[in-house]
Amino acid sequence: MKNIKAGLVGFGTVGSGVVKLLKENQLVIEQRLGIPIILKRVMDLDITTNRGIELGDGVLTDQLDKILDDPEISIVIELIGGIEPAKSIILQAIRNKKHVVTANKALLATHGDAIFKEAEKNKIDIAFEASVGGGIPILRSLREGFAANRIESILGIMNGTTNFILSEMTNREGKFEDILRYAQDRGFAEADPSFDLEGIDIAHKLVIILALAYGVRVNPEDIYTEGISGITLPDIEFAREFGYRIKHLAISRDEGSQIEARIHPTMLPFTHLLSEVDGVYNAFYVQGNAVGTTLFRGEGAGMMPTASAVVGDLVELSRNITRGISLRTPALSYQRKSILNKIIKNINEVITNYYLRFSVVDSPGVLSQISGILGRHNISISSVIQKDQKIEGAVPIVMMTHQAKEKSIQTAVDKINNLDVVLGRTVLIRIEDETLEGKHNQEQVIS
Amino acid sequence: MKNIKAGLVGFGTVGSGVVKLLKENQLVIEQRLGIPIILKRVMDLDITTNRGIELGDGVLTDQLDKILDDPEISIVIELIGGIEPAKSIILQAIRNKKHVVTANKALLATHGDAIFKEAEKNKIDIAFEASVGGGIPILRSLREGFAANRIESILGIMNGTTNFILSEMTNREGKFEDILRYAQDRGFAEADPSFDLEGIDIAHKLVIILALAYGVRVNPEDIYTEGISGITLPDIEFAREFGYRIKHLAISRDEGSQIEARIHPTMLPFTHLLSEVDGVYNAFYVQGNAVGTTLFRGEGAGMMPTASAVVGDLVELSRNITRGISLRTPALSYQRKSILNKIIKNINEVITNYYLRFSVVDSPGVLSQISGILGRHNISISSVIQKDQKIEGAVPIVMMTHQAKEKSIQTAVDKINNLDVVLGRTVLIRIEDETLEGKHNQEQVIS
Repeated sequence: MKNIKAGLVGFGTVGSGVVKLLKENQLVIEQRLGIPIILKRVMDLDITTNRGIELGDGVLTDQLDKILDDPEISIVIELIGGIEPAKSIILQAIRNKKHVVTANKALLATHGDAIFKEAEKNKIDIAFEASVGGGIPILRSLREGFAANRIESILGIMNGTTNFILSEMTNREGKFEDILRYAQDRGFAEADPSFDLEGIDIAHKLVIILALAYGVRVNPEDIYTEGISGITLPDIEFAREFGYRIKHLAISRDEGSQIEARIHPTMLPFTHLLSEVDGVYNAFYVQGNAVGTTLFRGEGAGMMPTASAVVGDLVELSRNITRGISLRTPALSYQRKSILNKIIKNINEVITNYYLRFSVVDSPGVLSQISGILGRHNISISSVIQKDQKIEGAVPIVMMTHQAKEKSIQTAVDKINNLDVVLGRTVLIRIEDETLEGKHNQEQVIS
Repeated sequence: MKNIKAGLVGFGTVGSGVVKLLKENQLVIEQRLGIPIILKRVMDLDITTNRGIELGDGVLTDQLDKILDDPEISIVIELIGGIEPAKSIILQAIRNKKHVVTANKALLATHGDAIFKEAEKNKIDIAFEASVGGGIPILRSLREGFAANRIESILGIMNGTTNFILSEMTNREGKFEDILRYAQDRGFAEADPSFDLEGIDIAHKLVIILALAYGVRVNPEDIYTEGISGITLPDIEFAREFGYRIKHLAISRDEGSQIEARIHPTMLPFTHLLSEVDGVYNAFYVQGNAVGTTLFRGEGAGMMPTASAVVGDLVELSRNITRGISLRTPALSYQRKSILNKIIKNINEVITNYYLRFSVVDSPGVLSQISGILGRHNISISSVIQKDQKIEGAVPIVMMTHQAKEKSIQTAVDKINNLDVVLGRTVLIRIEDETLEGKHNQEQVIS
């Protein structure tokens, strides 16, 4: 085989990065792979905008079939995102015996089953490192590097937008709305940022992580998902006083009969490695029963980091093509017959520590009413801060609890919210503590 | 193929971990690979010591040929370490068409060429993830995840022993000798620790990293290597005052026509991610021209993390064996014809910032004599600390320099050491600054 020919569908930001990278790093890619990768066609509906990137004569096209029907092209790179037409394009590519590289987490998280089944039927490889963690080789590491491990837990900062906003709120003491606008101006947040802010993007990525790490098939809507728009400066400040930072965290744990998987703003102690992962960086804190705890950190999005993952996948698939093999490694890391529809632990059953901020009237007996309700629900308090300064006309009482069940907390907080002395909705932020992590560590079979 | 049969040579600590891991994680390994991996034979000269690990009847043997001559065994795991007989065993395994998994960095760094050539000739795969960074999948990530990148630089903490000692000296303010004894008692340092302390182990690992990252063939003795036994508490304390921690760092950079590669105690600013990697952890700070900066961190040694890498390699090789292929990916990441004998930059040509501690008599004019010599060698000083308290009878003068050439620094320091007012040898510690890293960042072609 003299070379590998690929076709790119979607000439947007990441698509442009892929074109750039294949050109600029052509030499080193060929030094590793042994033969060159040639981008024969780039398809986009918009073929007039000047993207500042030179393509050879006849490479740019608005005709999809110039890629899907070209027998010379053995790999299709899908970078248009969203469900349709991406899904139909990928399925058609598979049926035309073309291997696929994609960064489309939304599609894989919601229609992955159909795509992976069709790919296996046609003996076609689907590579998708770029769908999670940008340039960080986290999916590969779960699939290959940690193949000998039972993965026990993964904590992830998986969305650059929410991490950037929370970091800037924390470091520059800016309000959510102001920082969001600043992020949008700098291109770190979309014009319509709800997909990121509400955690939907993270849920899609977590579905993929859950499959590769634990061998489970999960729908994104089964994952408890809470966004960051409720986080305010006073909570960031109180967290700091207690020695914590607030991060938009994806949490997953293998608990044997069920999997814990949830996404929400989380208080992490300063000493936790993830607490200082700021800005547009992503990071994964992975615990395996042999390898122990490991950390992967890097840029989780952006043109070139994402292109790095896409072209890395191109090289990987090319290695299989030159060898005449496919499906060497199961795309989802586990053999299809071993993938389970495991139950995700209901959020009500989760046991963790909580931060609660009550907004109350400034009168005697309030603290006793609140702590009385908590006590009756078996919630034990580890520390309390009550301050003079008012927030929006109310006095804040802040409590940190020992481990408690989510259902008890929610019931107690509902009752507290109904007290006459309580002026606003109670703020609830879950805590991921080192001590808690320690507890999980002790469950290791191997150590 | 119903299963993969492997033979293990070397039933020591890591060997025992491999046996344990294959047994305890048997299910999850088979769920990923599709078929079981069976450890058919374990060979060790000592077959009487009870290691607390059960082996099936007839598995343990002191006969090497029970592994090397068994046609059923397709993978040989070499975990005895050292040059001979490890080298002969691996070469014989290759000639007998058995794929090889090894953790033997000393062997690969000094005789890798002969082994990889023989392996290619026989179409045999050599896997060695466990040789660098314990359970951290750093070699795989360089070879696969970052295949599309030109690697620009790697800073690594690659030896758990020296990192443990420096961390403990820093955090508990203990003397080198005391901490070393403490580490030996806890099994974090060998009875004869010179291999680790002098940086020889790191040099072996760096040879492997240099090959995979930059495609160069280097001898360990070509790498400037300095151990940590000269580091004293006053220097750790002065470093802290300036905002730095001292780490035993492996530094490598692609400078185009030559490669910078050196190992020595290094001052890293508190803000550098590697400055807080403590204890037995290893970490790699990798910069690629597309992916940007990434960090990998995990346990760099120990029974189970190393076994995690060994068995991960077993799974990887098994995937090739079941497909009937080999040499799918070049072991050293680059095709043989692209591997260069690039020149390592002479340490005298290195340009960096320096920490200098002079031990002088307490008399007027000393500072002017010292700074005069530095000035005549074009070394400019960024800050000075002079303190009242004496160290071993001498007054310390501590200076941080702006960027200077190593040769100028060494010449100047030699002259200063010869001054009558200078009582002891000047301490010199190189600094790896963020600003310096920044300079390198700007050299990126792609950003």
